[in-house]
Order: sequence, then structure tokens, then C-alpha cells
Amino acid sequence: MKAGIFVEAGKIETQDLPKPEIKAPTDAILKIVRACVCGSDLWWYRGISKRQLNSQVGHEAIGIVESVGSQVTNVKPGDFVIAPFTHGCGHCAACLAGFDGDCMTKTDSEIVGYQAEYLRFKNANWALVKIPGQPEDYSDEQLNDLLTLADVMATGYHAAASAEVKDGDTVVVMGDGAVGLCGIIGAKLLGAKRIIAMSRHEDRQKLAKSFGATDIVPERGDAAVARVLELTNGAGADAVLECVGTEQSIDTAVKVGRPGSIVGRVGVPQKTEMDTNDLFWRNIGLRGGIASVTTYDRGVLLDAVLQGKIHPGKVFTKRFDLDLIEDAYAAMDKREAIKSLLVVSA
Amino acid sequence: MKAGIFVEAGKIETQDLPKPEIKAPTDAILKIVRACVCGSDLWWYRGISKRQLNSQVGHEAIGIVESVGSQVTNVKPGDFVIAPFTHGCGHCAACLAGFDGDCMTKTDSEIVGYQAEYLRFKNANWALVKIPGQPEDYSDEQLNDLLTLADVMATGYHAAASAEVKDGDTVVVMGDGAVGLCGIIGAKLLGAKRIIAMSRHEDRQKLAKSFGATDIVPERGDAAVARVLELTNGAGADAVLECVGTEQSIDTAVKVGRPGSIVGRVGVPQKTEMDTNDLFWRNIGLRGGIASVTTYDRGVLLDAVLQGKIHPGKVFTKRFDLDLIEDAYAAMDKREAIKSLLVVSA
Repeated sequence: MKAGIFVEAGKIETQDLPKPEIKAPTDAILKIVRACVCGSDLWWYRGISKRQLNSQVGHEAIGIVESVGSQVTNVKPGDFVIAPFTHGCGHCAACLAGFDGDCMTKTDSEIVGYQAEYLRFKNANWALVKIPGQPEDYSDEQLNDLLTLADVMATGYHAAASAEVKDGDTVVVMGDGAVGLCGIIGAKLLGAKRIIAMSRHEDRQKLAKSFGATDIVPERGDAAVARVLELTNGAGADAVLECVGTEQSIDTAVKVGRPGSIVGRVGVPQKTEMDTNDLFWRNIGLRGGIASVTTYDRGVLLDAVLQGKIHPGKVFTKRFDLDLIEDAYAAMDKREAIKSLLVVSA
Repeated sequence: MKAGIFVEAGKIETQDLPKPEIKAPTDAILKIVRACVCGSDLWWYRGISKRQLNSQVGHEAIGIVESVGSQVTNVKPGDFVIAPFTHGCGHCAACLAGFDGDCMTKTDSEIVGYQAEYLRFKNANWALVKIPGQPEDYSDEQLNDLLTLADVMATGYHAAASAEVKDGDTVVVMGDGAVGLCGIIGAKLLGAKRIIAMSRHEDRQKLAKSFGATDIVPERGDAAVARVLELTNGAGADAVLECVGTEQSIDTAVKVGRPGSIVGRVGVPQKTEMDTNDLFWRNIGLRGGIASVTTYDRGVLLDAVLQGKIHPGKVFTKRFDLDLIEDAYAAMDKREAIKSLLVVSA
């Protein structure tokens, strides 16, 4: 089968690999329909973080179940499914509490290889999310919407859920990448009345507005804080979504919230230590982490996509065949694409 | 009037001072009935934190309104009131959101001087909490219960509220001081089913159990983490109350929670920087800060005391006349008292 391979920093290519096989009774083999490139893939692509050379890549896809292990009964061959990047078992304390992104049932190794024709998916019984019908029942746009439910839309929603956005809230969203843009959708789903998007790129500002942003703040740092306070009559935001992870973004996120607000963060933090006394003296909360993909898809997001309430697939501004995976990465690396779609089959 | 004065580290005494007067239209003058010593008072008493020499002290009291400024209409002379350590205006964004401990309407200076016969109380119109009847209508125990609503009980409740304790939860409470003990009461009020108190002092363990603790863990650090995981079948707690503020206590608090749980902290953090990546990768939340005393008293706590549902006044294990303020501080400093009561009048 064809599969995306990380050769070395800056070099990714499609190679021929053996088709994966069921190894555990909880596995499923999926025939991938569509996959995509994540902003977090750029870290190792750019050589900022380490990754094993000549390893398979990708962690977002939709596909068709081809075969299942003996303990997989919730899905069967032929089912059309979302393949989340998370692999919740569905029965540990974390999964039961709705935090399947931190499933406590350990799987055997890092989970990757979604940018390929076939994928061995672990903990398939609970983690996979069944989509009604077959790929051909959906429009091209709908397939893209469904694909975002493997990670980016669920992650944006997690930022909003972690920030505990509620009806009528004024919300600030830090970051205008695909996750931040999906955070806007998430905030709106949770009832936000006013959504202030921190964005300085015209194409992303436009998408932010189409997703529900009511105000755009292009400033950064102290100027951004001043602007948000001005927009909120000095009060600050009721909830803040942090979808970047840089020190400056987290710092700004903490400062734009009113006392008692929560920063819901999904941007992987680049700095380990942070001054949490700023949080304490203003009762600012800090929540977030890895999204609960299966929980959110089943509970809210799949229905919202199927009913056409949300259109997160618009974050895919460029599409590529799996053979051209190198171009897909390069387009994101050069910021020519907000997010690159990989058409694998169908 | 008699008033407690911080002379220098280790030296506190009762001196004669002029009676305070109304200075702002939002002031009230209170005749103090009972006051008390806070664990946080020990910092400057011990010379760990700085405080202006020869300054008035104390931030918890109940008393009778003696006079009010022209803008104070919610209370009138003769009213029996709780004098919270917080001074919410009631109309800023923070107060409206229920975070009056972070009121955004600035008062003119640090608020102290509750350990005295009279007190000038700022933002009196909204912040003071009226108690039905007069002091003589209450038993000695009830007066002590009411006094805790000026700070310690509200602060313990804030830890539980910040940790978002909900019905049926398993909760860990870090700290067996007066605040931690009130945290147990707060967790129970919010529906906790199981309350694991971290305590190594027999008298405090006993009080913890009488307040609702179901399990006692005397271990600290890694041993404490192991014990909590053992008690919760490896899951960890649904919510954690951090009522100490030391680096070790915060570290343990983060480790004993299950993924997705929140550490509600009210222990003033001793260290500024902390590793928040531990939080991120397990979706552990961090909330808390200064308690919303007026909000909690009016919403939940005053009724709970008046109905005899809670008895937080038990944290006062020694009582002193205002003249013997030095002994009141010494008793807490030497851990001979969990919390020292000061009988001022009545």
C-alpha cells in the first residue's frame, strides 16, 4: 500500500509498504478515504521536535472498516467511520468521565500512520465513530466536514468546552490556525454571543467571521490585551480559548479574561514553566489538553455536521492526492494552505 | 478603642487607638463582636512576609453596624453583620460573575483592622452580609459558625467550588488547617460522596471526620499519591482541593486527580513558577484564588449555618479576649490551636 513516510526533517514522501494486519483482538483495519495534515505535524517536519526517521505519519482520517479483531463488535467490515487520533477504551475512569483523550488503558505504542491507504486502528471497539451510510452518500464538502471530526474540530471544541463557554458569553479565541478557527465554531455551538478572534491574516479573518467571529483583533501582546479590554468595557472575556501554545499567546490569554474566567488551552505548550500566581490573584482558571474526540463526536459534533449546522471542512484550503504528500506538507509549511487535505480513495 | 497592632515580627499587642470614622459615602463603621486569627496572619507574624510595622491587623469579624455613609442603604445602624475580608462592589463584571473576591472597583488601600473594637468597612453596601436578629439570639457555637463566614468557611467552599465538586464525586482535600477542614464541609455541601482528607494530626483527623471526611491519608508526597490511587482503584480523584500552597502540596494535588479533574486551590501559592505541562497532558484543570465571600455567604453558607447543617465554628479550638491577642497568635504559631477566636464584645 501507499503510505506517507517521514524520511528526515523537511523530507516526506509516499512509499510502498506492506498492508497492516490485525495484531490485537481490539484492532480494526481501515481503508482510508481521506486524511489530512495537522499543524502539529509541522514540528517534526520542520525539525523543531524529534521524530523517528523513516516512520509512518498522520493521525486524522475517515475510512471504511475492512476487518476487525475478535473483541470488536460495535463496528463491522463495510462501516464508514471517523478514525480519531485518540483511542479511548470506553471503560476506564478517564473515558467514563468524558476524557477519552487521556484514556488510562495503555495501547502498545505511538499511534500514527493515518496518511496511508490502510491503517491498523487500536481500541477500535469504542474509539471509532460510525458515520451513517457510505462515502458516496455525502458531498465533497460533507466528507471534509466529517474528516475534521478526527481531530481538528474536536480539538477546537475541546478548547471551548475546557474554557466552559456558556450561553451568552463573550469569548476570545487565540490563534487563527485550523484549530483556532474550529474553536470559534465550538464556542458558537456552546452559545457564545460575542466571539473575538485574534487574527492578522485576511483569509483567516474571513473564515473566522463565516464561522461566527463577531470581532477581529489583529494586535498581539499588550496591544491585544488593551484592545480586548476596550471591546469589553474593561471587563475582559468570560472565556478564553488558547489554540497556539506559545508563551506570548498563553500570557495574553490569561490577561484578556475577566476574574473567574477560564483559559481553555489546546495549543501544545511550548514552555514548561509558567507563572501561575497571575492566575491565582485573578481567579483565572487553566484547563485543557488532549481533546475527547470520540466523546465529542458522538455527543455533539457528528450530529452538527450531519445536520449541516457547522462547516469545519472549510479549513481545508488545499487538496492533494496521497502521492503528492510532500506538496501537502509544503503548502502548510509555507502558510499557503490553512490545512491540507489528502484524498486517498473514493 | 482597643486594637490589635503588629509591632514587629513575633510581637503583636493590643493598643489604644482613635475610633475610626466614616471617610467615604460607601463606608460603614462596625462595632466588632468577634474576630479571629487567620493562618495567613502567621506569615508576617513569623517574619516570612513583610508587613508595615505598627499597623492594624485582622480581616475576619462579625459585628454590629454603628453608622453608615450616605450611599449605604442595604444595611443600617443596629444590623448584625458578617464582615467579609473581601469588599465587592456588587456591580462590576467580576462581582456580577460571582467573583467578588476580585472586585474590579478599587478601594483606597489595604483592608485590615478587624481585630479591634471598631472597624471602618469599605464598599459596605453590597459586601456586608446581614445576619437575622442580634448576637444575643445565637448560641456561642452559632456565633462561631457565623464568624467563619467572614473568610475561612467561604475560602474552604471556594476550593470546592473551584474544583467543581459535584454530586457523587470522590474528592481529595490537601491540608488539615482550618481552611482545609472547611474545604471538607464545602465538598460535602456540593455533594461529594467520598472525601479523602490528607492529615497527619490526630485532633485534625477527628475534626475532618466530623465534617464529612470518609478516609484519612497521613502520607505525603509520592506515598500520598500511591495511597490515593490505591483508594480509588487507580482512577484518582474527581476533584482536588488544595488548601496549603506549598510546592509539594500543589504537586501532589495535581498527581492525585484523574484525567479531566480540577485542582481548586485557595492556599496562597508560595512558588511563582510551576510546570503546567503536567496539567496539559492529563487534562488537569487549575482554578481558584481569593474566595467570593459575599456571594457564597448569601447564596449557600449563611443558610447552611442558620439551619444548623454545617458547624465550621468547630475550627476555633482556643478563645481569647482581645486584650490577650498575643496569646491568640502564639497558640496558632505553636499549633496549639487550629484557629484562635478573639472575643471582642458581647
